[in-house]
Amino acid sequence: MHLTGVFAPLPTPFDEDGDLDLPRFRAALPRWLASPLTGVVVLGTNGEAGLLTDEEAERVIGEARAIVPAGRPLIAGTARESTRAAIQAATRAAALGADAVLVRTPCFFKGQMTGAAFERHYRAVADASPIPVLLYNFTAATGVNLQPDTVRTLAAHPNIVGIKESGSDIAQIADLVAVGSPAFSVLAGSASTFHAALAAGVDGGILALAGLVPGPCVRLFELARAGRMDDARPLQRQLLPLARLISTGYGVPGLKAALRLVGIDAGWPRQPLAPAPDVAIEALRQALHTFEDAFA
Amino acid sequence: MHLTGVFAPLPTPFDEDGDLDLPRFRAALPRWLASPLTGVVVLGTNGEAGLLTDEEAERVIGEARAIVPAGRPLIAGTARESTRAAIQAATRAAALGADAVLVRTPCFFKGQMTGAAFERHYRAVADASPIPVLLYNFTAATGVNLQPDTVRTLAAHPNIVGIKESGSDIAQIADLVAVGSPAFSVLAGSASTFHAALAAGVDGGILALAGLVPGPCVRLFELARAGRMDDARPLQRQLLPLARLISTGYGVPGLKAALRLVGIDAGWPRQPLAPAPDVAIEALRQALHTFEDAFA
Amino acid sequence: MHLTGVFAPLPTPFDEDGDLDLPRFRAALPRWLASPLTGVVVLGTNGEAGLLTDEEAERVIGEARAIVPAGRPLIAGTARESTRAAIQAATRAAALGADAVLVRTPCFFKGQMTGAAFERHYRAVADASPIPVLLYNFTAATGVNLQPDTVRTLAAHPNIVGIKESGSDIAQIADLVAVGSPAFSVLAGSASTFHAALAAGVDGGILALAGLVPGPCVRLFELARAGRMDDARPLQRQLLPLARLISTGYGVPGLKAALRLVGIDAGWPRQPLAPAPDVAIEALRQALHTFEDAFA
Amino acid sequence: MHLTGVFAPLPTPFDEDGDLDLPRFRAALPRWLASPLTGVVVLGTNGEAGLLTDEEAERVIGEARAIVPAGRPLIAGTARESTRAAIQAATRAAALGADAVLVRTPCFFKGQMTGAAFERHYRAVADASPIPVLLYNFTAATGVNLQPDTVRTLAAHPNIVGIKESGSDIAQIADLVAVGSPAFSVLAGSASTFHAALAAGVDGGILALAGLVPGPCVRLFELARAGRMDDARPLQRQLLPLARLISTGYGVPGLKAALRLVGIDAGWPRQPLAPAPDVAIEALRQALHTFEDAFA
Repeated sequence: MHLTGVFAPLPTPFDEDGDLDLPRFRAALPRWLASPLTGVVVLGTNGEAGLLTDEEAERVIGEARAIVPAGRPLIAGTARESTRAAIQAATRAAALGADAVLVRTPCFFKGQMTGAAFERHYRAVADASPIPVLLYNFTAATGVNLQPDTVRTLAAHPNIVGIKESGSDIAQIADLVAVGSPAFSVLAGSASTFHAALAAGVDGGILALAGLVPGPCVRLFELARAGRMDDARPLQRQLLPLARLISTGYGVPGLKAALRLVGIDAGWPRQPLAPAPDVAIEALRQALHTFEDAFA
Repeated sequence: MHLTGVFAPLPTPFDEDGDLDLPRFRAALPRWLASPLTGVVVLGTNGEAGLLTDEEAERVIGEARAIVPAGRPLIAGTARESTRAAIQAATRAAALGADAVLVRTPCFFKGQMTGAAFERHYRAVADASPIPVLLYNFTAATGVNLQPDTVRTLAAHPNIVGIKESGSDIAQIADLVAVGSPAFSVLAGSASTFHAALAAGVDGGILALAGLVPGPCVRLFELARAGRMDDARPLQRQLLPLARLISTGYGVPGLKAALRLVGIDAGWPRQPLAPAPDVAIEALRQALHTFEDAFA
Repeated sequence: MHLTGVFAPLPTPFDEDGDLDLPRFRAALPRWLASPLTGVVVLGTNGEAGLLTDEEAERVIGEARAIVPAGRPLIAGTARESTRAAIQAATRAAALGADAVLVRTPCFFKGQMTGAAFERHYRAVADASPIPVLLYNFTAATGVNLQPDTVRTLAAHPNIVGIKESGSDIAQIADLVAVGSPAFSVLAGSASTFHAALAAGVDGGILALAGLVPGPCVRLFELARAGRMDDARPLQRQLLPLARLISTGYGVPGLKAALRLVGIDAGWPRQPLAPAPDVAIEALRQALHTFEDAFA
Repeated sequence: MHLTGVFAPLPTPFDEDGDLDLPRFRAALPRWLASPLTGVVVLGTNGEAGLLTDEEAERVIGEARAIVPAGRPLIAGTARESTRAAIQAATRAAALGADAVLVRTPCFFKGQMTGAAFERHYRAVADASPIPVLLYNFTAATGVNLQPDTVRTLAAHPNIVGIKESGSDIAQIADLVAVGSPAFSVLAGSASTFHAALAAGVDGGILALAGLVPGPCVRLFELARAGRMDDARPLQRQLLPLARLISTGYGVPGLKAALRLVGIDAGWPRQPLAPAPDVAIEALRQALHTFEDAFA
């Protein structure tokens, strides 16, 4: 498995009472599958994974696998704070048919989350997981940083196949690219610096933005792959306002509101998240306006 | 219920395989109950709550309630990222006999954790919880800050009885004290600034350090209550090195190692936490040396 | 020299064109001298020292010395980024009659400002200065931190008589107090945590707020000295809004506007600083309202 | 004037006593002029500008102008905290023959350094300066950030010709590039992200690294200009260790030590800076080893 291309982390639909809404999920999934996206991720940050019970998480994976055809990569987020829980979640995801697991760093005990702790955690998970493991570093959300040196060590593990790096520190991304194993993928997680990450040599991206405007995101990737960075730059510029609105701006509620604007019903966020305010919806509407072909 | 005094957040024992070890917990609990501590907290940060399953968490609360006598406050940590899960955890803790719940702020979706989000979350939990709710702010671990203005609003809720503030920003602690409702307790969570927090007028503390050296911590509290801040100051100074070793220094693994040094077997930390290294144990031994009466 | 008590860092008046306005300074100084302040500081942060030429700085010191009577401590800020310039400034201040110099840490080359660098810098200045040296740590403004361990070493120098610590980290302040040399003063620089710093044992403060409401600040100091921390607490609470308005709120322009409101004309700030906006003046007016005796 | 290309910020030589050493400067300058660098900058951060007196600064500019031929851009750093001093410094630099001035943001009064304050400051300087003005943002050193929105406004001023942005936030750099005025240059200041900045569309760089290994830096620039980002990437990777050693690693002392290793005598740093330690020199020697043609 060598992951390359553009993946979308899918939102998890809830109804207005906050109940998991699988019918909505079933109805929405084909839209993403009809897009040029390489594959999809369920239960990532944008899937509000931290707000689900284990049992709900399993239902989401099962539902997704029933719809995502074999051959189209389905990645499941299975991060847990404890190593044993992370192992169990990966094992269940494999049983439910996921192709790989995306495992965010544990982070609550920040002071103890040293390189050695990350190494132990990921080795244990990768040793036990029946399916390949993607590391996942998201310092802005977790307050901890999985350093390139630790990643280099972990990349040698036969069941660790890549990393999603959600930071925008390009020097760190360049260090990850320099890990340089052909069997190890570096996927960008920040849409606002996707062009720069591609210039630095990443293999693709897992981008919330790609679930909203897959066409332009894939085009940006392909232009970069063709070495046409100058042609790709205006596209990045065009994507930037939207990328910011659904990340640092309004987060998951913003993403769900934006999806509704392009005709995809991903339901409501679960509390303590609240639906995006009107001002967000208006800003999203304007930012989407430049993408005529978003999901048309 | 007006909480005042010194409370210890108890560690959760695991055996060497990382399994929950309730016999060890049963064996250790009487030591704390024999001390001058006002009460105990289970499943707080130092209880490695984030590393337990819900079912394990319930067993810890049940076990504690079987041993902690009525009249001795037993507080249970029941923080969850989702509001509905937090409500369920509080409800279960009540059914298991806890006297109050300690509810840390949700924190994963940092950008969305506004004052309004915290207000909604805590109101929903406090409305539903059969037992009183303590707010819990721990910015260094969570990356979010529950502002005094929001706390002031929440303090008017009849089922919200106080806050554990683990920060060391004394101006913020003074703002919390100024909330000034007689039915609302402010408890310090940082042992290294306990003297300063007492000078600022807090009602007590929930301190990992108090589970290790309860006598000196209670003495510091009582001196402060008697207005003898100058006499209390040398005690704070004496406690500082130990406080740092089991917080920013070596965290929960440090606390567990230190407890072993004073004759309390709280087992091992659960992965990804690792047992404290030898250098920590040596530093702890030296810092404990000045407390002849620690747990003698 | 053992510095204890409450000192005010005086603003440097400029006229509306930004020219140094010594007549205004002459007119204002007696107001502070008539107050219960222990002494005054010229050319500190609030004196906009960084916006003056060396020649202007000398005129301010000379002017102050002509008015501040012998026996009333006059401290001159003489921080410079280069060690040789700091030595020259201290030497000139001494020649102009200052009683001591206040020397903020150099800070531009942050990565190189190690403990060893600070030690070399301060030793060189203290060796050369004809008058005693006060260290000055202001991490929020400088981005560097003069650690207690370095301060402990420097405190042994016979010409280093204390430190102004402008941070609000009470554990660090307690560490400084623990340096514990009778010949070394620890002076707080943050008015919003003055009560806490006094509880931690500092010898006094150099507080912009004290130049605005000297009476209450000195009263707070004296209550603390008398061990009456509980009585002092309401005073701290009363001072807090004003303290914030002239520090993190509106800075030096806020201080100058507030002084005007109490009848002291300290002129205008020099560019790039701009006069406080109307909203600041209104907030200051309200915060000052609780201090009937401010400068009456 | 449209600045494009690679510029080196030159160090200012001091002798072992810390005296300004113009003969050393005279001896070293031709080495840089013989290189493919577009031009040079004196009195930037790496020129230890903050450690010089105004009079020394003028001598450095005058000396440089005497050697740098007309037609080869000579840029002088003239940042001062006060607007009037910044105007005077720019005026003097013009009189001494500099082609443009590089004006770092004032930064000491962080809370007051709003966009409006920066706008007033730069407009006043640009109105008065006889020669073109380059903005200069270096958040890591100053703690303040000149936002793209403010830069966009300032870019309309006829005497403001560009910005040196020393940050590595590529999204912010992309925003600056999007200012998009043909008369406004964006120059990168961070060598460790130069490739990424070039991919984002900057016009060139002012890089300490370029004073040490001008050939590879210019080659990187030219490959990027030719759209050969993939070919440029290995060069960036090769430059990274050296870039880090002379920036976050050992700063100006590291740069001076490295220059000595390639046969350029730039003297010693001035206190409080100290010469690079032996461990730095060894690391620099190894990092330089990969650049056979550094300054050969």
